[in-house]
Amino acid sequence: MKMPPAIMETALYCEDLEKAKQFYCDVLGLEIIAEGEGRHVFFMLEGSVLLIFNPQVTDKPSPAARFPVPHHGAKGPGHACFRADGEALDAWRKRLQDAGVEIEEEITWANGARSLYFRDPAGNSLEFGEGRLWNI
Amino acid sequence: MKMPPAIMETALYCEDLEKAKQFYCDVLGLEIIAEGEGRHVFFMLEGSVLLIFNPQVTDKPSPAARFPVPHHGAKGPGHACFRADGEALDAWRKRLQDAGVEIEEEITWANGARSLYFRDPAGNSLEFGEGRLWNI
Repeated sequence: MKMPPAIMETALYCEDLEKAKQFYCDVLGLEIIAEGEGRHVFFMLEGSVLLIFNPQVTDKPSPAARFPVPHHGAKGPGHACFRADGEALDAWRKRLQDAGVEIEEEITWANGARSLYFRDPAGNSLEFGEGRLWNI
Repeated sequence: MKMPPAIMETALYCEDLEKAKQFYCDVLGLEIIAEGEGRHVFFMLEGSVLLIFNPQVTDKPSPAARFPVPHHGAKGPGHACFRADGEALDAWRKRLQDAGVEIEEEITWANGARSLYFRDPAGNSLEFGEGRLWNI
């Protein structure tokens, strides 16, 4: 067993999955790898997967489901950060701006690492941040 | 800019940060890399960071904060999955059981990949899963 383990799946919640698909595909350029109509849409990241769930569906047990996945489903804005170093951060800023996505905040941390913040259609706080923030 | 980007931070929410610390440190063996009393505790993972926030504090703007981090803070059970392949999955199961943590569910997916599910003290649904589930 590897310690610490790596993240394999990060979950966020969006009630309107069509808007989520449009945003994560068209704006962030992610590829859909699995989809359950009205329930979830999953996107491939580098080395892990971003799960977007409709919490109205996933927050209760679903005994009729093919697999007995435990229920979960948070309400209100979550948070996730994607890694982008140096010029990549600037390229993502331009891509977001070109798509009309508001950059909510930009922060230069005490160690010089930079972060930029924006929101998905459900209001989740997303970030592109430089790996040196955490010595990654 | 690298596409798709990698996850750098995965966030979950726990109102009782002391219980969260005990669980993520003692049971999962994670190392604390940052802490804000009553607000957050962050843990190092392999190549990324697990952020645990108290949503009662982070779900509103904090103009007096040193850095203007956008607000977020979800309520209700979230989800995250850590990667564990083969024998590592069995070793994590044993570690959880030895610590008295209930294994809520075990699933073998259509492609043969295995997942085991448990919960943190706040009720977040955590998973150890094999990378081949997503061809990782």
